[in-house]
Amino acid sequence: MSTDWLNAIKWDDKGLVPAIAQDAETNEVLMVAWMNAESLELSKREGRAIYWSRSRQKLWRKGEESGNVQQLKEMRLDCDADVVLLKVEQIGSVACHTGRRSCFYRKLDGNTLTWETTDPVLKDPKQMYNK
Amino acid sequence: MSTDWLNAIKWDDKGLVPAIAQDAETNEVLMVAWMNAESLELSKREGRAIYWSRSRQKLWRKGEESGNVQQLKEMRLDCDADVVLLKVEQIGSVACHTGRRSCFYRKLDGNTLTWETTDPVLKDPKQMYNK
Repeated sequence: MSTDWLNAIKWDDKGLVPAIAQDAETNEVLMVAWMNAESLELSKREGRAIYWSRSRQKLWRKGEESGNVQQLKEMRLDCDADVVLLKVEQIGSVACHTGRRSCFYRKLDGNTLTWETTDPVLKDPKQMYNK
Repeated sequence: MSTDWLNAIKWDDKGLVPAIAQDAETNEVLMVAWMNAESLELSKREGRAIYWSRSRQKLWRKGEESGNVQQLKEMRLDCDADVVLLKVEQIGSVACHTGRRSCFYRKLDGNTLTWETTDPVLKDPKQMYNK
């Protein structure tokens, strides 16, 4: 199988690129994680988002613990070839480990200059991770 | 003025975070660039997207040459506090230096395993940069 599409990517000095997961229907940005070549190739092959966990230094099949799998609908690459965009169907509606839809649940309040939590918790994280 | 909101961010070892520019109306992801604390603070103050150009090692007021300014509607921060999401109004409709709407104009063709250009050039880059 050709790996030209993987070689087209400009991996950073750690061999990673940021990957944005976006809801394929609503275009909501759900999260950003990192991928190495192996995780990107596996994502394509398995049809689901598979990231490289920088904290755990291992492959992270999104949803492997929480059940919040991201089914891959489309992959895009930017002009500099150093960011990947995944259009996904978010199983279980929740992408964030806090139980929220999106990881971007805090908004800068322009008056108070504080990051205000605006999005509700949809699932109890304890239920997501202690099955 | 409080800088707590800037200190809340987990800057990487180069003092940067990735910033996603998303169309505030359609939710399209337009581009990803990088910000340091100064560029983020200036973005807030000036109400437009100001990035840190890693290649030029200087502030980059998006649109300063091309006219494709991004007016800032909202700023969001993710759960790990290491990615910023900018909701913007893209002046001139074009975010990409190639003259396309979005930098993510290439889609992986699952059969041929090639990155196919799917989005049209809306503006001649020569016209954008040689004014």
